[in-house]
Amino acid sequence: MELKRERVREHLLTVIDGRRPGDAIPSERTLCAALGVSRPTLRAAVDELVATGLLVREHGRGMFVAPDKVTQELVAEHHAAGAPRSRGDWSSTVLDLRTVRAGARIGRKLAVSPAAELVHVTRLRHVDGAPIALEHLHVPADLVPGLTAADMEGGFYAHLRERRGIRTAHAVQSIEPTVLSEEEADLLGVPVLSPALLFDRTTSDTTGRPVEYVRALYRGDRYRIVSRLALDTRLPDHPEPGAGRAGAWWGTVD
Amino acid sequence: MELKRERVREHLLTVIDGRRPGDAIPSERTLCAALGVSRPTLRAAVDELVATGLLVREHGRGMFVAPDKVTQELVAEHHAAGAPRSRGDWSSTVLDLRTVRAGARIGRKLAVSPAAELVHVTRLRHVDGAPIALEHLHVPADLVPGLTAADMEGGFYAHLRERRGIRTAHAVQSIEPTVLSEEEADLLGVPVLSPALLFDRTTSDTTGRPVEYVRALYRGDRYRIVSRLALDTRLPDHPEPGAGRAGAWWGTVD
Repeated sequence: MELKRERVREHLLTVIDGRRPGDAIPSERTLCAALGVSRPTLRAAVDELVATGLLVREHGRGMFVAPDKVTQELVAEHHAAGAPRSRGDWSSTVLDLRTVRAGARIGRKLAVSPAAELVHVTRLRHVDGAPIALEHLHVPADLVPGLTAADMEGGFYAHLRERRGIRTAHAVQSIEPTVLSEEEADLLGVPVLSPALLFDRTTSDTTGRPVEYVRALYRGDRYRIVSRLALDTRLPDHPEPGAGRAGAWWGTVD
Repeated sequence: MELKRERVREHLLTVIDGRRPGDAIPSERTLCAALGVSRPTLRAAVDELVATGLLVREHGRGMFVAPDKVTQELVAEHHAAGAPRSRGDWSSTVLDLRTVRAGARIGRKLAVSPAAELVHVTRLRHVDGAPIALEHLHVPADLVPGLTAADMEGGFYAHLRERRGIRTAHAVQSIEPTVLSEEEADLLGVPVLSPALLFDRTTSDTTGRPVEYVRALYRGDRYRIVSRLALDTRLPDHPEPGAGRAGAWWGTVD
């Protein structure tokens, strides 16, 4: 069987592809007739494209092509003349800054006692003024005594380096898809349960000491990552998409 | 304000962290009392952890710690002695194989006419027999005349190389979070609207000719990517998580 949803999605993607951001697309009735599918089938496909940020539904007005996503290019070493930058002007706003107990889980990540005090900073990151990510930073309190929101305005790593003599050097990061809670969705200005990328990261300084644990939620409708891959011509089949080195997502077995 | 959901999630993550896969966790009532939150607040946090594959809810039996995720490590070049491999035995099953018209969008990706014929292959990838990904391959029909599901058993790239003289060499891939449609969720054995990673990829051969366009959906409850990052000690703040080179997700500006 061919997946009906895949056929409907392909048709909608083609419709979108032929238009510009902000352009209207045909009505649900027109599309159902063109595709010979039921309203629920079409709606499910439209819902996914709305959730993934390709279409915008405006009640009473219809459906429109969404604005372009912020695209972060992951480049391979041979053409990296520095870090790639996605378009747009990035800024951040501290929503909350407080001292909390590490607890067993985060204590283990930061190699401190569960009873140790951490500074927990909640901040929003913006691109061109629009919220794109919600970050939770956890930092051992004894590394940043008296930390204030203002201290973070020039960048947290710059503050660590210039005011605390701490140079961040390494990190371990995991990436998973998730959906946004009502609270998170409100802060990011999207509907509850919208898809998001969850980045979970522990950062160490030049001495190998863990200095921050971060959970960051990036809006799925506004953020994506693009990578250029070098494949080993001897691979038997599609490699696992996450495997890789030298900027590639997949391994080159050589 | 501290996000209430973040506090509840942290508590649940700590509860999970202290247990093994399959262990039961306290009842919703017990957790609400321990945290001083309402049922809806607790449920929202539990729902997210179920959706992201950390908890399993069994009606009438309670809540349990989920099995470990398949973790794909993205390694940096200096410690890559070949491609990393996630645990488990990978296999795939062809669900459908048919010839279709390219259409405008996919035709552009594969640099063929919208009227060109493509072979569209739908297949499931399994880890240790459990479905983890749903793949849609699109290949120009003139590159693989007479392609059958059996041809793909030894791996599609191996078939292209050994039977068609085509060596895959490069690809451009994007990654975004999405949610699964009912049809997709059924095939992957998860609830509708479960989070998933969407990989969208165009692969070219050693001559630079596009040979396949693939859309792959990976279960968010069973798959994640882990990377080790080398940071430039001069970065002012958290880099964008997708930026990077040499196996890193972030850029080193040097």
